[in-house]
Amino acid sequence: MKKPNLILTFIFVYQGIVFSQFNTPDPLPSWNEGKTKSAITEFVTSVTDKSSPVYIKPYDRIATFDNDGTLWCEQPTIQVVYTIMRVKEMYPDHPEWKNERIFQALMENDKEYIEEDYASGGKGLMQVLEAVNTGMTEEAFHNEVLNFFKTAEHPKYKVSYTKVYYVPMLELINYLKDNEFKVFICSGGGLDFMRAVSNEIYGIPTQNVIGSFAKAEYEITNGSSEILKLPELILINDKTGKPVGIDYFIGRKPVFSAGNVRTGGDIAMNTYCQSNKLPSIQLMVNHDDPVRESEYGEKGNESLDAAAKNNWNVVSIKNDWKKVFEFE
Amino acid sequence: MKKPNLILTFIFVYQGIVFSQFNTPDPLPSWNEGKTKSAITEFVTSVTDKSSPVYIKPYDRIATFDNDGTLWCEQPTIQVVYTIMRVKEMYPDHPEWKNERIFQALMENDKEYIEEDYASGGKGLMQVLEAVNTGMTEEAFHNEVLNFFKTAEHPKYKVSYTKVYYVPMLELINYLKDNEFKVFICSGGGLDFMRAVSNEIYGIPTQNVIGSFAKAEYEITNGSSEILKLPELILINDKTGKPVGIDYFIGRKPVFSAGNVRTGGDIAMNTYCQSNKLPSIQLMVNHDDPVRESEYGEKGNESLDAAAKNNWNVVSIKNDWKKVFEFE
Repeated sequence: MKKPNLILTFIFVYQGIVFSQFNTPDPLPSWNEGKTKSAITEFVTSVTDKSSPVYIKPYDRIATFDNDGTLWCEQPTIQVVYTIMRVKEMYPDHPEWKNERIFQALMENDKEYIEEDYASGGKGLMQVLEAVNTGMTEEAFHNEVLNFFKTAEHPKYKVSYTKVYYVPMLELINYLKDNEFKVFICSGGGLDFMRAVSNEIYGIPTQNVIGSFAKAEYEITNGSSEILKLPELILINDKTGKPVGIDYFIGRKPVFSAGNVRTGGDIAMNTYCQSNKLPSIQLMVNHDDPVRESEYGEKGNESLDAAAKNNWNVVSIKNDWKKVFEFE
Repeated sequence: MKKPNLILTFIFVYQGIVFSQFNTPDPLPSWNEGKTKSAITEFVTSVTDKSSPVYIKPYDRIATFDNDGTLWCEQPTIQVVYTIMRVKEMYPDHPEWKNERIFQALMENDKEYIEEDYASGGKGLMQVLEAVNTGMTEEAFHNEVLNFFKTAEHPKYKVSYTKVYYVPMLELINYLKDNEFKVFICSGGGLDFMRAVSNEIYGIPTQNVIGSFAKAEYEITNGSSEILKLPELILINDKTGKPVGIDYFIGRKPVFSAGNVRTGGDIAMNTYCQSNKLPSIQLMVNHDDPVRESEYGEKGNESLDAAAKNNWNVVSIKNDWKKVFEFE
């Protein structure tokens, strides 16, 4: 009677191993093992464990992600590429732009003048954004953006801009969703611009996108019922605008937030998240991988300083990510 | 061999009946059988059936509900009760209100003056709303509202205002959720006011509430990280403001919308919903039950006229609802 028992034991143990491997696959396979990955998985594991002292109810599991440079590549910034393309397309129909220095600068790729305008408050660039993003119906704008994503190609990677998302971040979004987090994009970019592709790229529906937005108006013309985009900005969802956007659109503080180093745009969002009375975690993506992605910092180093001071997790693209892009 | 087969057949049939009854309970038990209930269940059944020509993907199943008079009783309007209570509480600390006619009118219940102000544009009332709703942190306001709901009592029903929701509408919300609809409140009332209790009453989280809202500002004081509510209105989410609110917060047209007769506040929302290229359904609640709830119409009859013209489903509280309130 010994032999069959041994065989059975072996079978059970073997099945157990197979089953347990099958049951708990690595939720973040594109992340290298290390401090950052552990911090994320330990946070998620503990706050979703009902017996844990840091347990968070599913209702309160709100996560907010910056988009440019956090979820997808921002070299170049995709909405800037779109804007320049649209100015060139629209130029023949706008003879009045001939007398506007900023439009000329864009047509001639006069980087010096554009930088100058940006540095002195960006009055000209705002005029450009108005021309390209407003004075049309929501639907017309939506179709323009979809058309851009169908045709345009990233200058370095030679793929559609819908493919320049970071694989580890998409895994993280799905990992959070699987653990009953509500995942939001909270970006300085235009609300309607990102909404056109957020579900296709990230599986994040339009209602979970927060961004900069302008006043809109409802109009019924010839029986059609449309939203018209007006040239009056309501929110610049960047820097201290991000907690405001989160307040308008979500109405509660997140427990998970992720931004990136470049302009200090995500410091306020992470600070706001960390001020949650519930346990929380903050990430700050650092672009330190000139080979696979890009290498750039921040003039005043504010984002990394804030991360160090507040114990936010700095995500090193070079060291923390096994894979950056799907097309690698 | 005949007998056992007959018995088996009987058992299977009996189990089948029990099973099918168990499996398909009436999702709307507080709705009387009839045209309205059938229209709702037929819509939901057909658009969620993959083999149906009117099938709608879960992603596009967006439903928007007005709140006052659609989801809960608006006699009296609860936020007005709150506002008057707060004016009375705050009055001793605001000697400057002694010189303001509108505050005096509220203190003395001078209905004639209040009506007059409302009819002539509501300049005074806006000043009151500003005083009660802005110039404080989000958190302070939230706590004030929670306190109101804990202590105040409905004058007629003698229950907390959290109990004056309509049971049939709560069933409808849950029925839609069970069928993978995303359910939103889209009300003329204040965004932050409703958010304080939307999850407790309806199981609708703060991020699924759309309402009138004012500008906010992010401030860090003494290490605390807060949202400050400013006296500058961004959106009055009523009438043609509702499609705009839906555009800001959701970014897509709903396929299901429900409003009520009183001021014509939901005509634009239903029109916007009906302009969806996908199949859609619209409800218009009519307050015709003076015994169990209230009886009131609309001066110009615009909502019922629009319903008749556009084939919206008029919900008669008297005839369509078996039960109105939980506490009946």
